Amino acid sequence: MTETTQATSSPQAPAPPSDPAAPEVPMTAAAGEGATTVRTTEELTPLGEGLRRATAGRYGPVRELMRSTLPADLMVRDPALSMEEARDWTVQTVRSLLELGLGGTGFPTSVGGLDDVGRSCVDFEMTAHGDLSVTVKSGVHFGLYGGAVTSLGTDRHHEEFLPPVISMEQIGSYAMTEFGHGSDVASLETTITHDPRTDELVVHSPTPSATKTYIGAAARDARMAAVYGQLVVDGVSHGVHVVLVPVRDEQGRPMPGVTLGDNGHKGGLLGVDNGTMTFDHVRVPRRMLLDRYGGIDDEGRYVSDIEGDSKRFFTMLGTLVRGRICVGVGAGVASRKALSIATRYALRRRQFDAPGRDDEVLLMDYRAHQRKLLPAIATTYAHTFALNECVDRLQELHEASEKDQVAQRELETRAAGLKAVVTRFANDTIQVCREACGGAGYMAENGLTVLRGDADVFATFEGDNTVLLQLVAKGLLTGYQEMWGDLDTRGMVAAGARMIGGQVVEATAVRPLVNRLVAAAARRSEDETLLDRGWHLAMFVDREKHVLQTLANRLRSRAKDEDSFAAFNDAQDHVLMAARTHMDRIVLEAFVEGIEACEDGEVRDVLERLCTLYALTSIEADSGWFQAHNRMSAARAKAVTAQINTLCGELRPHALGLVEGMGVPEAWLGSAMLSQDPARWTPGTTPA
Amino acid sequence: MTETTQATSSPQAPAPPSDPAAPEVPMTAAAGEGATTVRTTEELTPLGEGLRRATAGRYGPVRELMRSTLPADLMVRDPALSMEEARDWTVQTVRSLLELGLGGTGFPTSVGGLDDVGRSCVDFEMTAHGDLSVTVKSGVHFGLYGGAVTSLGTDRHHEEFLPPVISMEQIGSYAMTEFGHGSDVASLETTITHDPRTDELVVHSPTPSATKTYIGAAARDARMAAVYGQLVVDGVSHGVHVVLVPVRDEQGRPMPGVTLGDNGHKGGLLGVDNGTMTFDHVRVPRRMLLDRYGGIDDEGRYVSDIEGDSKRFFTMLGTLVRGRICVGVGAGVASRKALSIATRYALRRRQFDAPGRDDEVLLMDYRAHQRKLLPAIATTYAHTFALNECVDRLQELHEASEKDQVAQRELETRAAGLKAVVTRFANDTIQVCREACGGAGYMAENGLTVLRGDADVFATFEGDNTVLLQLVAKGLLTGYQEMWGDLDTRGMVAAGARMIGGQVVEATAVRPLVNRLVAAAARRSEDETLLDRGWHLAMFVDREKHVLQTLANRLRSRAKDEDSFAAFNDAQDHVLMAARTHMDRIVLEAFVEGIEACEDGEVRDVLERLCTLYALTSIEADSGWFQAHNRMSAARAKAVTAQINTLCGELRPHALGLVEGMGVPEAWLGSAMLSQDPARWTPGTTPA
Repeated sequence: MTETTQATSSPQAPAPPSDPAAPEVPMTAAAGEGATTVRTTEELTPLGEGLRRATAGRYGPVRELMRSTLPADLMVRDPALSMEEARDWTVQTVRSLLELGLGGTGFPTSVGGLDDVGRSCVDFEMTAHGDLSVTVKSGVHFGLYGGAVTSLGTDRHHEEFLPPVISMEQIGSYAMTEFGHGSDVASLETTITHDPRTDELVVHSPTPSATKTYIGAAARDARMAAVYGQLVVDGVSHGVHVVLVPVRDEQGRPMPGVTLGDNGHKGGLLGVDNGTMTFDHVRVPRRMLLDRYGGIDDEGRYVSDIEGDSKRFFTMLGTLVRGRICVGVGAGVASRKALSIATRYALRRRQFDAPGRDDEVLLMDYRAHQRKLLPAIATTYAHTFALNECVDRLQELHEASEKDQVAQRELETRAAGLKAVVTRFANDTIQVCREACGGAGYMAENGLTVLRGDADVFATFEGDNTVLLQLVAKGLLTGYQEMWGDLDTRGMVAAGARMIGGQVVEATAVRPLVNRLVAAAARRSEDETLLDRGWHLAMFVDREKHVLQTLANRLRSRAKDEDSFAAFNDAQDHVLMAARTHMDRIVLEAFVEGIEACEDGEVRDVLERLCTLYALTSIEADSGWFQAHNRMSAARAKAVTAQINTLCGELRPHALGLVEGMGVPEAWLGSAMLSQDPARWTPGTTPA
Repeated sequence: MTETTQATSSPQAPAPPSDPAAPEVPMTAAAGEGATTVRTTEELTPLGEGLRRATAGRYGPVRELMRSTLPADLMVRDPALSMEEARDWTVQTVRSLLELGLGGTGFPTSVGGLDDVGRSCVDFEMTAHGDLSVTVKSGVHFGLYGGAVTSLGTDRHHEEFLPPVISMEQIGSYAMTEFGHGSDVASLETTITHDPRTDELVVHSPTPSATKTYIGAAARDARMAAVYGQLVVDGVSHGVHVVLVPVRDEQGRPMPGVTLGDNGHKGGLLGVDNGTMTFDHVRVPRRMLLDRYGGIDDEGRYVSDIEGDSKRFFTMLGTLVRGRICVGVGAGVASRKALSIATRYALRRRQFDAPGRDDEVLLMDYRAHQRKLLPAIATTYAHTFALNECVDRLQELHEASEKDQVAQRELETRAAGLKAVVTRFANDTIQVCREACGGAGYMAENGLTVLRGDADVFATFEGDNTVLLQLVAKGLLTGYQEMWGDLDTRGMVAAGARMIGGQVVEATAVRPLVNRLVAAAARRSEDETLLDRGWHLAMFVDREKHVLQTLANRLRSRAKDEDSFAAFNDAQDHVLMAARTHMDRIVLEAFVEGIEACEDGEVRDVLERLCTLYALTSIEADSGWFQAHNRMSAARAKAVTAQINTLCGELRPHALGLVEGMGVPEAWLGSAMLSQDPARWTPGTTPA
């Protein structure tokens, strides 16, 4: 087992796809020793290959292996399937992927996993290249349900409950959200009451609003549920805990006292059977409580190593950070996939004659089209580096022998913020891509509309984006010193009031490279630095610092207000901007670090242009702010826009390589228009 | 007939819903004399009622009547229907609406219509409150197919082909787009060749890319098609013309030589049977050519009153302006419907405790939520006034005894621009609304995701938005003096070069009210005018003028470039901005005119705030531009943002009235969460 784990985590740089010395990567713990690397059949341009290498990160070999081994026919769902057919197909595809090794890598080695939570995020990432119903169905079972058992349970829970998770004998669900409370998990109404007479836990939905809803697998497949509710022991509530409840018997019938409903059709994810759950005094043995952080001893007393319901609650929620990272990772894939489809189409689709040209003009040659696609491609590269860092960091902290609470909260904050930023970008970008393909983009067979509908929910599940950004701001205001995760308006105001000037940006680890570049930029005049990375970084750092500092001042000035909600609420747009500008800086720094690690000159040159395009696009979007705060002159603001257009022109010839570098195999795109006879799309030609 | 027409078009102000003297409005020409006004059953706040009155316009009584008579059960499609079931339901619903009088109002009185094309847009608008598949299905048949017969055909075409359109005996389709050409209609490859031996027309698809695609009703229901193709007479091509072709027999089998395909699932509009059509030397009699603008005489010679293929082509395309107005109108409804759902939800949904408050906080009380919904509501009011003006103008020009070519082109430009602006806004806004409802927003039963998917295509059909905005810019550069509608890059550059400084904004009719307000603002200092309408107007006018003037300069400087495509293309983002800023001004002016006509003080006060919110939101979005061009100081830029927040706070108490005023009856929203037991959504309460 040890050897396998080493093989997975040791290569820091990925093997190039054509390198005969590529290391063997175990697909799963079990398959580890026998697995061999199958060569990819994709033919890539040198730039595409180089960009894949440059963005590979720690888990690059895993991705490369999956790209060459996962069959394309598992990746695309027929959009004509009915809901029931889609659900059947989805669960079957999850089982097929499990046979190929995707599913169990994040579980403890004691039950046959690789104990590699970073790797489990990469598994999620690779399934997200296919149908997102499969990804979410798999994520709910292995990641959320299995993850809750792993993180909130103890060894005996692992032994008893994880094997049927890993084998998919018992499909699990994750029963957190209720009709009455979604974002506000601490206020869930479901009760888990200890009955000392029978030493059982009584799970109950006391009100209509306590009904669990939107629960993946509730409508059809779930046999088990990880149910969140208020734990009541000896008449005292100890806050939200999680208990495992069997919800269906082996014949698939609801267990006594459990009422299961079906949420029916949704905006997407047709293959995921979301539904409702209501509990009418359902009894389970005490051992079903996931009690790593708090439980009930044999004498029927509540026991916990963590003092304070709130601290315990946030410690428990913190273990769920992987889910948010996975959603961000999945959204990143969705953007890259959409951009791959739209850009490949723009490289073959022509429309309108132009004087002096034999052929009609390629869509990709229109400036407006370039501005739709190329800055978005630049942003996906930025996000890829930031997401890779986040996944790596998750595994580093998991591997660390000593737990660093501040580092953990910083990771939780970063995961929340990245999730919000990347999912917002994905929804916007997939839509841009669908429109950039005109009427063809609207046809389901071309792969964009199903993707759009599926990724949509990423904006609000695993944390509503608006709420998540507020949590990021709170993390910044407290320097990660306080308990993370509560949208507590009074606490936010107080944190602002306590913040000491200037500490803000320094709260996150300073990167020497960034410091060096910023310092170098400061020594130059404005005229020289439009392409200067140091100037970009300085602008991002300064924007974040100023927004956060003024936010703190604003909250401080109202710290004694009786109505602390009003004090928070009046500044809410400021709070959101603080979070967003922080994440922009984090993402840019990750991009800069990523470039620094790239040794291939030509690839590096393209990455530099992409990074500049990303940075200037962000600066242009905040042009009003930068000018209003005397960070940018009028002349410079105009120059930024002109420079973005120049960069689009410079990157245009590299479009295919940029697409390949995003790492989505063409065979996985599931886009009919890209595989149809080109004569259909090219006026005046005869069929092939 | 005369009386009926007068009754429909004469009331300039709508009757208030509770006015017992409300005029009778004929539902159709046929039903005119017998129709009675049924009172609405909605209970509205005084503000809601007043806002409906203020936004009613010429066709207000028609809308009011339909709101009170169209049954809610025709408005919502069960999202669980399969594609075939949805198609059945859709065509049946179109028939039911026809029985209620929606369908024939735009046709000539000679065949039983009202000859009221404005009214036909309002019919479209009212059906758009329901399922958009029904709206589009109806629009393709009555509006596009029937409209082509009406506008491009002559009396004998009307007599022969319109009665089975009006009765829906023969469902028609509109076969314009081909795989090879969508936006570039002039380059369609389908040929319509005159055979003098038999005096027939031979309709043919010479290449795979000439296959008609995305054609509504092609897959299943169409019996007839209005086919666009190059008319070839005696070996000479005369450009694109339209011929009627029977595509199915009475048993629904494809006619000989016609191959029909199915586009299958799309991003939405499940009930519309879009498909493909290929013609293999299909023969129809010469009389099937719609020859109002160009045809073939009995000697087999091509004849036309319009000289020049290009001028004729654009005259023919110009008759299709109603389709674009309808799409804009439909998108306007979609936004208002989504905002109605999200705002009503935000007025009942609570989440998170706040210190000193008994209940959890209403979503609508969060500043971030207000900023998501209230500026969007303000924008829908702005769009409503602009769309009403456009519909009224369409009917005015239709009624005018003398045809004014410049006025016609101005209307076409405005329709194209409004379509682009309103559909872009609809897509963005429905998404904001869906996310503002959290997980509930993602459930199909709550009415937002189906709407989102259906309205999506509005961005690219009836003219791709990016192409349409370029046409707007071209119209501005030529002052509507040149032929409209071609995305001719050389022509665009030449038009810029010919444009004389300063003529730009004056090319559109100057509104005395606007002039007065702008002049008054110019006399005041910057400090006093943040809420001043004249300042808003001046900012909008100045932005448009400067962008257009600098665009003209830029094009002029490159007028002698050999590569005129490059000259155009380098400025393409500038071209798009010119169009957008023009439309922003048009929309603001329509809002200002609308307020001027409102005599109810309290309603007017709310409209003034909405208008200011709309104006400042646009100024804030272009804050970077205004500062970079020395139109706004840094201090003022900050003040604009603060003022937007203040306005959100001021409008918050009026939220329900604002929603009601948008005119979507609550019963038509089709949103389960709004009709379910409130206890489900309100923590801690017991069932009703």
